[in-house]
Amino acid sequence: MNGADSLCDTLLANDVDVCFANPGTSEMHFVAALDRKPKMRCVLGLFEGVVTGAADGYARMADKPAATLLHLGPGLGNGLANLHNAKRARTPMVNIVGDHATYHVQYDAPLTSDVEGVARPMSHWVKRTMTAAALSADAAEAVGVARRSPGNIATLILPADTAWTDLPESAAQPVLAPREELTRTSAEAVRAAAAAIRSGEVVTLMLGGTALRERALNAAGRIARATGARLVSETSNRRIERGGSRTPVDRLPYPIDLAVAKLKDVRHLVLVGAKSPVGFFAYPGKPSLLAPADCNQVVLATAEQDLAHALEWLADELGIAADAPRLAAPAASYEVPQSGKLTGAAVNILVARMLPEQAIVCDESITQGREFPIYSASSAPHDWLMLTGGAIGIGLPLATGAAVACPDRKVVTLQADGSGMYTLQALWTQARENLDCLTVILANRSYATLHGEMKNVGVKEPGRNARRMLDLQEPHLEWTHLARGMGVEAVSVDTVEGFARALQEGLKRRGPFLIEAVI
Amino acid sequence: MNGADSLCDTLLANDVDVCFANPGTSEMHFVAALDRKPKMRCVLGLFEGVVTGAADGYARMADKPAATLLHLGPGLGNGLANLHNAKRARTPMVNIVGDHATYHVQYDAPLTSDVEGVARPMSHWVKRTMTAAALSADAAEAVGVARRSPGNIATLILPADTAWTDLPESAAQPVLAPREELTRTSAEAVRAAAAAIRSGEVVTLMLGGTALRERALNAAGRIARATGARLVSETSNRRIERGGSRTPVDRLPYPIDLAVAKLKDVRHLVLVGAKSPVGFFAYPGKPSLLAPADCNQVVLATAEQDLAHALEWLADELGIAADAPRLAAPAASYEVPQSGKLTGAAVNILVARMLPEQAIVCDESITQGREFPIYSASSAPHDWLMLTGGAIGIGLPLATGAAVACPDRKVVTLQADGSGMYTLQALWTQARENLDCLTVILANRSYATLHGEMKNVGVKEPGRNARRMLDLQEPHLEWTHLARGMGVEAVSVDTVEGFARALQEGLKRRGPFLIEAVI
Repeated sequence: MNGADSLCDTLLANDVDVCFANPGTSEMHFVAALDRKPKMRCVLGLFEGVVTGAADGYARMADKPAATLLHLGPGLGNGLANLHNAKRARTPMVNIVGDHATYHVQYDAPLTSDVEGVARPMSHWVKRTMTAAALSADAAEAVGVARRSPGNIATLILPADTAWTDLPESAAQPVLAPREELTRTSAEAVRAAAAAIRSGEVVTLMLGGTALRERALNAAGRIARATGARLVSETSNRRIERGGSRTPVDRLPYPIDLAVAKLKDVRHLVLVGAKSPVGFFAYPGKPSLLAPADCNQVVLATAEQDLAHALEWLADELGIAADAPRLAAPAASYEVPQSGKLTGAAVNILVARMLPEQAIVCDESITQGREFPIYSASSAPHDWLMLTGGAIGIGLPLATGAAVACPDRKVVTLQADGSGMYTLQALWTQARENLDCLTVILANRSYATLHGEMKNVGVKEPGRNARRMLDLQEPHLEWTHLARGMGVEAVSVDTVEGFARALQEGLKRRGPFLIEAVI
Repeated sequence: MNGADSLCDTLLANDVDVCFANPGTSEMHFVAALDRKPKMRCVLGLFEGVVTGAADGYARMADKPAATLLHLGPGLGNGLANLHNAKRARTPMVNIVGDHATYHVQYDAPLTSDVEGVARPMSHWVKRTMTAAALSADAAEAVGVARRSPGNIATLILPADTAWTDLPESAAQPVLAPREELTRTSAEAVRAAAAAIRSGEVVTLMLGGTALRERALNAAGRIARATGARLVSETSNRRIERGGSRTPVDRLPYPIDLAVAKLKDVRHLVLVGAKSPVGFFAYPGKPSLLAPADCNQVVLATAEQDLAHALEWLADELGIAADAPRLAAPAASYEVPQSGKLTGAAVNILVARMLPEQAIVCDESITQGREFPIYSASSAPHDWLMLTGGAIGIGLPLATGAAVACPDRKVVTLQADGSGMYTLQALWTQARENLDCLTVILANRSYATLHGEMKNVGVKEPGRNARRMLDLQEPHLEWTHLARGMGVEAVSVDTVEGFARALQEGLKRRGPFLIEAVI
């Protein structure tokens, strides 16, 4: 056995058994080792942004890290934007980044770069293993760090000679990473939150991270129902379990004016795994901090703590019975469009209505999908995964990874066209792995969000330079061709009837399918 | 006027008049400013790897920097791999990277990241401008650094409020960057090189950077013809002017065994803008340094110096007349295939034969194009641009930028399929700008170079995990669909006759066209 074998064995022994990969020459010994470990499922992405985004989607649904395999500084660089999203989602991930042999780095060959430098901005932990003998301990440390609540990006740099150097068979016992218990919040924090709720003033529970999973939400739902406290999630969330009888939670809007309006009368903000809300961007004359300056902010529990326990404890403290009724989603009160020109709203409504049980919704719909959560609050039970770090190009990879994690569930992706183009290569992986991914491209043929932002900066009528940077016309993208080019069947529709038919068809089949919804 | 206007004015005043861009919210004021400066040509890329790769291709052909406009750390991250290539090519480039407003960074909004940290590994110079008043001086400094020989990557971080803050009209005079003269080599260096050549032992002139431009090559060609010195270029080169009556130069092979063999009997290695050659990768039991350990290495001139002057001086020192005959390319001695199953060799031969005058060849053909330089040594005069830093995904963007720089020349891209997938979004920009780009996809449907490397690490028959990471089958890519999806007409051919016809057709038309050459 060699270092690469030791690394693979350690990953497998620590329950990391999926590797999203785009390897290169310096990783060939690792690839050869993977070949000797059929238990490791290797999933190829044709671009590293697909690889890291898929590892994110996988871990969000599997609740355990995947490994990625990346090729030196530039390969890691290609994966950086989706690592940024994963870091913001606090997704656990173990990146294995191949590098030149330890003795070769000094010669500054063309692919040499400062790999640690590239890794650090988007990793919580970075280490370079210098000997084959150290690999198992380092890999176990990486897995341990990745799993530590609320989840971390661990990047292990693997010099080629560390992988290819032989090890004695006595080194065969892989190191196991400890599993850490979640810490719990304090009685003081619970009492402070309870006092805020008992004040009789407007209280909002701001939920983030695992507070958006079913058990925690149920406790929050009892509190909300019993006390009138509002439930609001952060704008960007790793995973929300919702639909069916689950407790609904409002999402803090992305547009700054709406976000400020939503919080303007809040007197007590109870933070449950969430940060005090800040503007996604700064705008001239608008605030950075979104909660009223004089509102009382109480931290019930931080993101790394056991948030379900904290909310249940808070319910107990408030004297709310474990079987007390919970907040319920309002009955759907929208009209279902039947025909005519397709609109973003019609797409959202029809997807919300037809969403199958236990679907996983991957949402990078940007402007066009902002109303989807409203329509889908009473959909069948589903998971809702979204863009967390604002780095566009996550939707298709996220869906790819989620489908690998949950082969028995339908993955429905709401994908804006502009951001979809960033990592469209994910469609190929969906075809290769025959993943049950239905993609809806919301094709408005522009960076619509930026048109809005242009108005925000005072430009009423964009000129030629601006239009050419904000529009995706001339030529428009044909997603059916793009999908077919990567082995995914696709249709394009521009009417409500057409979309309803295509959606029905797409939901019925197994395997990847794409609907270009021209709106 | 505001900071963004001042920045645009400064770029234009310093002869930077093309901006490859993919902007976001934090850059909206810059976009609005660009709208007021119609002299700036804004070219949208649908992914930042396209933006930086196009800026590289532009500068290689225009001999001056373009600007890029990128969106915070993740947008820069997406452009990092092609920045790495540009850094290795020593291409001048000015990156403008938007960031949060100076006062907003502290709140750690979702898109916040360490932008300097992301920039540094692939930039020669990084600066954050903290006030609108400082923007003109900082932008001028960036252009000055970028232009400094042999070319640098300058990254200027632009906080949103720096762009949007108003400036007095008195600030309207943009700062001009000084233009620096090239330094010249020394008489000692010339005498040492001349002594090596006069030794009567085997001498190789190793040429890099601007030593591969016509005037320098002509001087090298006189020396080679008169003295028997061999001319070899580095493996990875920014731009070689070749074909027609230009002096031919051998490229140091990428495969390590071939590279070592090429240099094995060299007694004197004269470095002209080149580094002493090193292995692209390390391999167990193979050397990192490629020249014989005991060979005499002489630096005639370094990359930042005036290499044409150095070679002309060396010719003078050797007593070679300015009109002495030069080394000529051997007459083409290969057979031109007429029919049958298409092969990589047939593609290379036919492209080499049909290459129009002053074509620009962008080469990311990886394994399949290795013989193209042999066949094309006696082609019509052309420029040959190639992958410089080993970060795949540069071919299509490079072509895009080269075509923007040289609208009257045909750009022919030899693109391997695996690497082409990294930045295929460049095809859309070619369609949008109606660029005269003919793309040949060498579709071998695998990462063929890695199959070779697997053999190098001793794996004779790759297993399932390895095959699934090295092959692009199941499903295979259909490049005609991919191209059409982005508005580029395309055909797929798998015979010699079919390819010859398609190539003729593609060369005849103006505007983008793609040929999938299934080999």
